[in-house]
Amino acid sequence: MRTPRFTVLAEGAFGVETAKTATSAIRYLPERVSSILDSRFAASTVTDVIGFGGAIPIVSSLSEALALEPGPEALLIGIAPQGGTLPEAWRGMLHDALKAGLDVWSGLHTHLSRDPDLSALAAALGRSLVDLRKPPPDLVVGTGLAQRTTALRVLTVGSDCNVGKMTTALELRRELEERGVRTGFAATGQTGILIAGSGIAVDAVLSDFVSGATERVTLEAARDTDVVLIEGQGSLMHPGYSAVTLGLLHGALPQCMVLCAMPGRGSIYGGNHDWVSLPPLEEVIRRYEEALSWAHPDTPGKVVAVSLATYDLDEEEAKAAVEEVIRMTGLPVTDPIRFGVEPIVAAVEARRADVTAAASP
Amino acid sequence: MRTPRFTVLAEGAFGVETAKTATSAIRYLPERVSSILDSRFAASTVTDVIGFGGAIPIVSSLSEALALEPGPEALLIGIAPQGGTLPEAWRGMLHDALKAGLDVWSGLHTHLSRDPDLSALAAALGRSLVDLRKPPPDLVVGTGLAQRTTALRVLTVGSDCNVGKMTTALELRRELEERGVRTGFAATGQTGILIAGSGIAVDAVLSDFVSGATERVTLEAARDTDVVLIEGQGSLMHPGYSAVTLGLLHGALPQCMVLCAMPGRGSIYGGNHDWVSLPPLEEVIRRYEEALSWAHPDTPGKVVAVSLATYDLDEEEAKAAVEEVIRMTGLPVTDPIRFGVEPIVAAVEARRADVTAAASP
Repeated sequence: MRTPRFTVLAEGAFGVETAKTATSAIRYLPERVSSILDSRFAASTVTDVIGFGGAIPIVSSLSEALALEPGPEALLIGIAPQGGTLPEAWRGMLHDALKAGLDVWSGLHTHLSRDPDLSALAAALGRSLVDLRKPPPDLVVGTGLAQRTTALRVLTVGSDCNVGKMTTALELRRELEERGVRTGFAATGQTGILIAGSGIAVDAVLSDFVSGATERVTLEAARDTDVVLIEGQGSLMHPGYSAVTLGLLHGALPQCMVLCAMPGRGSIYGGNHDWVSLPPLEEVIRRYEEALSWAHPDTPGKVVAVSLATYDLDEEEAKAAVEEVIRMTGLPVTDPIRFGVEPIVAAVEARRADVTAAASP
Repeated sequence: MRTPRFTVLAEGAFGVETAKTATSAIRYLPERVSSILDSRFAASTVTDVIGFGGAIPIVSSLSEALALEPGPEALLIGIAPQGGTLPEAWRGMLHDALKAGLDVWSGLHTHLSRDPDLSALAAALGRSLVDLRKPPPDLVVGTGLAQRTTALRVLTVGSDCNVGKMTTALELRRELEERGVRTGFAATGQTGILIAGSGIAVDAVLSDFVSGATERVTLEAARDTDVVLIEGQGSLMHPGYSAVTLGLLHGALPQCMVLCAMPGRGSIYGGNHDWVSLPPLEEVIRRYEEALSWAHPDTPGKVVAVSLATYDLDEEEAKAAVEEVIRMTGLPVTDPIRFGVEPIVAAVEARRADVTAAASP
């Protein structure tokens, strides 16, 4: 899958969490992002709004995006509405993009390629509709095959959604590769798949196949590597997404987990779910280790470090939050974006040494 | 959905666990079962093979099934192969059934209505293909709505697959209704849907929607009732199906659970999964209560009774197994088929009294 140059649709949402596909594309595929479409910030750069990403321009219309040099080859839907259906308000813009010669890439649950109107127009114009969340047709029920990897399996897990599970895995990959460790990344969500160029969106497969899909991406990404980083999803405590999380845990059967969290978040994110309060992080850690052990009784996986997303705190508050979680958990803790990922890398490498030693005769 | 009179395809599998749709149809819809198709037992009755079901004949061919009076109106696929795809060996018989004027009902994952060959033939002949596992198109992410029922929510949970979760719920329904308690049954699997005439197969929905689908069937079945019995699926310990189980638990948010188990089963059923050993039942109970509490911290649900499937034991062994589990758990225990469901009904009614009292001002 060759990744084209995108204009990223984030109308009305750039800079907030529902536009995390847009933000992550800027962080991990900057050379592929031609512009961001959000009329609220016309004539700004992305750095003006999110603090990184350089001079990538924000535009207020598709025609403005098309006029840039070099221009986009595709429109990427950079917003993930809950439930994942296409807002009807976007249909006109997708028509315009196809007519202007762009492909359309999407991570929505409802596949654009199954929309009769859009697929007919794309076919007539010779354009592609790429559904990042479309699973392969031949998935099976999981049977614990991930245990066969010689690579150390590392899963990022979360107290909640939107707390940095993909980002932590990608920062870990960058740093491990810089140190010469052969590293694979098993993408399990639409943005991860966009960045990795492969993977399966495990929240978009039939529920019987979540762990089977996870073991498949894990085995593929683990080939010829020393460490495979598996992108986590959701939270065991999330009343809407916990199924995905437990299936992922029992499909990946990690020897090593990194807990991702936001300091001070006292309940599950989003107005539909905030009736579920979140326990202290040491209790979250215990729950993940226990739930993993149910289907992996012999070589239980451990949470070896905590990754905090502190972007909504100032520098002093962020440092204090890291210190507090170190005190509370006794584990290495960092915000990989703000303070660097090194403490987590060290913890993963120590776990790899332990697992390797235990496996030797 | 009017339920037709069936000939039930169970070729090579009648009497074993993969044919549980056939067995359950005989137990709960006997007046709808015209014959069972399994050439191994031609000229026998179902009672000869499974010990109940009366004089329903077993036939060795479709033409024999069609010659019966009154004859079948539909062929029901009564076997659930793991993974749920249509064995190619059955295609010819499905053709013959459609040509003979029968509809075809199926609980397979792969929908017959999406099979180009079968759907073209059915359309040409004016026959119907009914996919019991086909979910409604408008599912959403779960948000805890099940908590709104005034009916007591009772979920059957299991140490494993094939341990009586649907049967226990249906036996409970029968006995509660006999006592004048208004009772709903929320079907979550293909056989339950066949028997109830409605429901959603939660193992066949996208994983993001498991808890949302569960809360929808729970709310529908709970209307104008005192107790809603929710059919459980899988096991928290099952490496292939645990995603479905946790999503169901967090969608149903039961105040009351009944644990279903088979005495002496020491590991997860099936050669692909038996590397996962099962803990003692009191530990299984603790795990369900804990996992439920993660998304339901305020009014935690309790396991109030244990339902044992003892069909592979003799009478003395079965009694000993019940006594042992009573000693181990301190809970009411029975095999609802062999010894009657009354001890479980009493436990559910006691829990209903407690929950009602706690809700009163």
